[in-house]
Amino acid sequence: MTNRPLRIGLIGTGRIGQVHAANIAADAETTLSWIADPFVAGAEAVAARHGGRVTDDPERLLTSGEVDAVLVASPTATHVDLIARSVDLGLPVLCEKPIDLDIARVDALRPRIASAGVPVALGFNRRFDPAFASARTRVEAGEVGALEQLTIISRDPAAPPADYVAVSGGIFRDMTIHDFDMARFFLPDIVEVQATGTTTFDAGARLHGDFDTAVCTLRTSSGAIVTIVNSRHSAVGYDQRLEAFGARGHLSVANAPSSLVSLSTTAAVEAKPPYENFFLERYARAYAAELHEFAKLARGEASTSPTYEDGRAALVLADAAQRSAVDRVAVAVDLG
Amino acid sequence: MTNRPLRIGLIGTGRIGQVHAANIAADAETTLSWIADPFVAGAEAVAARHGGRVTDDPERLLTSGEVDAVLVASPTATHVDLIARSVDLGLPVLCEKPIDLDIARVDALRPRIASAGVPVALGFNRRFDPAFASARTRVEAGEVGALEQLTIISRDPAAPPADYVAVSGGIFRDMTIHDFDMARFFLPDIVEVQATGTTTFDAGARLHGDFDTAVCTLRTSSGAIVTIVNSRHSAVGYDQRLEAFGARGHLSVANAPSSLVSLSTTAAVEAKPPYENFFLERYARAYAAELHEFAKLARGEASTSPTYEDGRAALVLADAAQRSAVDRVAVAVDLG
Amino acid sequence: MTNRPLRIGLIGTGRIGQVHAANIAADAETTLSWIADPFVAGAEAVAARHGGRVTDDPERLLTSGEVDAVLVASPTATHVDLIARSVDLGLPVLCEKPIDLDIARVDALRPRIASAGVPVALGFNRRFDPAFASARTRVEAGEVGALEQLTIISRDPAAPPADYVAVSGGIFRDMTIHDFDMARFFLPDIVEVQATGTTTFDAGARLHGDFDTAVCTLRTSSGAIVTIVNSRHSAVGYDQRLEAFGARGHLSVANAPSSLVSLSTTAAVEAKPPYENFFLERYARAYAAELHEFAKLARGEASTSPTYEDGRAALVLADAAQRSAVDRVAVAVDLG
Amino acid sequence: MTNRPLRIGLIGTGRIGQVHAANIAADAETTLSWIADPFVAGAEAVAARHGGRVTDDPERLLTSGEVDAVLVASPTATHVDLIARSVDLGLPVLCEKPIDLDIARVDALRPRIASAGVPVALGFNRRFDPAFASARTRVEAGEVGALEQLTIISRDPAAPPADYVAVSGGIFRDMTIHDFDMARFFLPDIVEVQATGTTTFDAGARLHGDFDTAVCTLRTSSGAIVTIVNSRHSAVGYDQRLEAFGARGHLSVANAPSSLVSLSTTAAVEAKPPYENFFLERYARAYAAELHEFAKLARGEASTSPTYEDGRAALVLADAAQRSAVDRVAVAVDLG
Repeated sequence: MTNRPLRIGLIGTGRIGQVHAANIAADAETTLSWIADPFVAGAEAVAARHGGRVTDDPERLLTSGEVDAVLVASPTATHVDLIARSVDLGLPVLCEKPIDLDIARVDALRPRIASAGVPVALGFNRRFDPAFASARTRVEAGEVGALEQLTIISRDPAAPPADYVAVSGGIFRDMTIHDFDMARFFLPDIVEVQATGTTTFDAGARLHGDFDTAVCTLRTSSGAIVTIVNSRHSAVGYDQRLEAFGARGHLSVANAPSSLVSLSTTAAVEAKPPYENFFLERYARAYAAELHEFAKLARGEASTSPTYEDGRAALVLADAAQRSAVDRVAVAVDLG
Repeated sequence: MTNRPLRIGLIGTGRIGQVHAANIAADAETTLSWIADPFVAGAEAVAARHGGRVTDDPERLLTSGEVDAVLVASPTATHVDLIARSVDLGLPVLCEKPIDLDIARVDALRPRIASAGVPVALGFNRRFDPAFASARTRVEAGEVGALEQLTIISRDPAAPPADYVAVSGGIFRDMTIHDFDMARFFLPDIVEVQATGTTTFDAGARLHGDFDTAVCTLRTSSGAIVTIVNSRHSAVGYDQRLEAFGARGHLSVANAPSSLVSLSTTAAVEAKPPYENFFLERYARAYAAELHEFAKLARGEASTSPTYEDGRAALVLADAAQRSAVDRVAVAVDLG
Repeated sequence: MTNRPLRIGLIGTGRIGQVHAANIAADAETTLSWIADPFVAGAEAVAARHGGRVTDDPERLLTSGEVDAVLVASPTATHVDLIARSVDLGLPVLCEKPIDLDIARVDALRPRIASAGVPVALGFNRRFDPAFASARTRVEAGEVGALEQLTIISRDPAAPPADYVAVSGGIFRDMTIHDFDMARFFLPDIVEVQATGTTTFDAGARLHGDFDTAVCTLRTSSGAIVTIVNSRHSAVGYDQRLEAFGARGHLSVANAPSSLVSLSTTAAVEAKPPYENFFLERYARAYAAELHEFAKLARGEASTSPTYEDGRAALVLADAAQRSAVDRVAVAVDLG
Repeated sequence: MTNRPLRIGLIGTGRIGQVHAANIAADAETTLSWIADPFVAGAEAVAARHGGRVTDDPERLLTSGEVDAVLVASPTATHVDLIARSVDLGLPVLCEKPIDLDIARVDALRPRIASAGVPVALGFNRRFDPAFASARTRVEAGEVGALEQLTIISRDPAAPPADYVAVSGGIFRDMTIHDFDMARFFLPDIVEVQATGTTTFDAGARLHGDFDTAVCTLRTSSGAIVTIVNSRHSAVGYDQRLEAFGARGHLSVANAPSSLVSLSTTAAVEAKPPYENFFLERYARAYAAELHEFAKLARGEASTSPTYEDGRAALVLADAAQRSAVDRVAVAVDLG
């Protein structure tokens, strides 16, 4: 550990904010110094558990002089302004995905981020999952030869509430955006997106013109193809798999078993308990590693944290997928 | 067994023709009565092993009065004429896929097949594979609830010779056609096709303007989505998997292990030998079951043999995929 | 194939005899020339299916001048005399296990076998199972280093009828004998046997003073330990596994899946159908390979067929296990 | 949580003591109040990390008036006296296994424990492993019917140093003792022990007359049989498995995968990284749960902590195994 812990200001204390708070408190290199949430009771509950001063006003936190870095876990609509303000104040930021639902706003901020010299990281936590990280490291190390195809299966246990769907930006910007980033983790140079979406079971999706089932096909400049299979429900628990096919073989990431026990009876053999329920459990270690890596970034050390550009690229892919799914054409993208 | 074995005339004694000959000889309900191949030595070699009279002229076989049914395993260009002639003579036919590379020729024969009252079966052998057949039966039985998504991974061990690629009709008509039929085995009512194809490793595909890697997305009238992941090479052996996702769970078909033995060392645990090499091994039982089921069809008994219409539907999907892959648009299809 | 097929005389047409008859007929290097069974109708049924002349008298078969080798699949009590007579007539024999239930009778014949120069093979079919054979070949090739421990799990689907138990010679001579031979396939030099047997669920075993559950521990001269876990019932189907632990890792033989399909639902994931039912299915390929290898032995070619000495050794181990299980002491054995 | 955290005094700050210290500090219901170790620097290092006052004298800790319960993680030879003294002072104790290497000393203390009315728990941590605990709960719930056989595979990554072997009490008292307790977790009523031990690879075991490889067979009063397969080395990492066979099926506990990633190449498919290295990693959650459960016991709440009697029973079984392995006879035991 270098000198004293990094003092982090946390903005937003919803479900994800609470996860970050616990990780900040548990990591020896970070400490939770300020917590901001308009819903002050939420911030106070977090402070009671993990320490930190409380405010209902993010500006108070940002200008307290007691934060070394900012973690933005507030609603999506606030992200761009909070990133901008933090950067102006010279404070490194880790912002939850997506940056914004409007690419115009993301692009508008882009030059400022590029020129500011202040680190901005995006919360694509899955890059820090030990399994996905290991698969990618091993692909980079050449264990399967040149990468030719990538398939990602990403299916949620259950559809979100209709109210959430209404403001989510749609399945591609809300859910697939993680998979777009995972695709780019292995194959950054995507040049085209094809998508199909349907609505078969979720009344919320139907009500708000969204899809509950979707498949995206991405093409890279080198001719590699990425396939993303999404569903808003998975009866057996959170279904998160990946296969990376190369010239010499493939690497597979399996689902995390929820138990080492299997049952064999006259009905079936080797039956295992359903998978872990959802992302907070499945990616618990990833969230902690993401935070740890951000602390290194904030200190100016070498870091693998995904960047603002990664956040923008994922949104560009999501927009292209949405257009493809509606217009029934392949959509070229330029992530440069 | 009813009365005497069904006398089958086999046209074509290439690799697949030889498989059929062995199965006809081994099945107690069928016998190999005539064998036709312009390459007479090939026909004679088959006859020496499995019995039957030999000719270089299919017409001699068809009019011998000694065949009860015809198995067409000759080159694709001959299929339409041989089916037509067999049907005119009142002889049930099992024809290898595809019916033809030209949908116009397939459509031209269509009314004659429909009105003839003579059974015509298509050689979509994978429907008879115990694993795929069981998965489909279990889906039909409702084990996973309403079917929402189907993913098919179908990757060949190695690209075919460039000469073969030149006349194959392209990856969608030659290779994916099996997967299109498998998709329709579970979800017959496909209404739209989206495809992406690239050429990254196979010189033969590049030479002849074909793809070596492809992904297709099919949409059904009910909103179910089928994803087909293809490659002309798979370093680990023939890769044939399927997952059927439904409202209450999913059924998975795994690759066939080539051995029950696994090795665990300091390098890795549970390492198994590579998969069985290719379709003749993987689908050996399927070919035998296909033949057996055709014999029932020829006798007028209940049969699950895929039909001329199934053969046409798969070709329509292949044509749509080819167009989608080239024009970069989704292509609507009418299989009615 | 050398010259003409080996003419085999089959003695005994029970369940196993029928398996051998089919394999003799199917193997291009063998032909079924004579069939003997006091129950003539059984022999005639086999002849109708696979050819061969029929008699109720084994002596008629042995002296017909039309058999090149003998396959003994008659009741255990007849084995010693039939082997002796075949050897006197210069006819190679493949005899089902066990040679006899009485080691004295086995030992009495031993010098005659040793001096006769006529090949005698024992029907330890599991040695020819592709999985067990591969595991052993790989151990011999040094893939796991020096072999230190071997565990064999061998559990039958259901207890045999009480009438069979009465004459079976007990679980060690009847069932474990296969596992004793499998132990010696990997580690021939067994010097001590320890066994525990209990009777908890099978009325037949209780009635006849037999065990329905047993565990044997064998020690080799080099200090390797073999563990055999037996049960007369396995709810999930025939349970046949093996692990060979060495200095550098281990090889495992898994159960044969009865299907490649698995089901995942809210109740359980990756549930597979129960295993194949019993030995005729599980070891079908092994029986065919055993016959094929015997044909090579009979022709004087190199062969891996287990010998009379292997048959004797397995019985010595079974006797020792029985004594250990009753007297509650470890029993030294000399297989030399 | 009830009132204030339980103040725990930790005696011994070796490898296991440090694990307990971290768990005490992390558990909201416990706090580390005192730490005793004759090697004071070790105690101080623990205090610096997790809090607590330090002494080189356990008596000082026990009589401080500032501990509510005691955790004994000092060398085996000190256990009996420390348990006795704690009980006399009315302090609940969690003591690492084994209680002692000498059953006479264990038996001598037995009546005092029985009459004292102070909770004494034994550190059989594996009972708290989520997988083993779940398997046992499911067996109790009848998922496999009446339990007939239990097989335990328990193999360490590498043999301990020769110096440790010298004072360990031998493989049965040192290593198998965990498996004896696991056997009794499922089947408490063991009546007989049979054991075989050999020494094939570990110079330390050879030097000190110990075994490096061992198999034990335990018989219960009901006729169930337990098999324990031990080795002092496992090339692939810590190998900890269990199968519980019952009338209606079986439950299996698999090894913990160290990654969700598998590699398939031309050499092998589905090759996974080696298992987690050793018990501190494999049983990390078990140690935490053990501590948590002990806190409940110390508070007089319902608890599943294994008892002094469980500790004694495991030692009785170990002694019997040692005698059986040397005298080559089965040894009857009375755990009543």
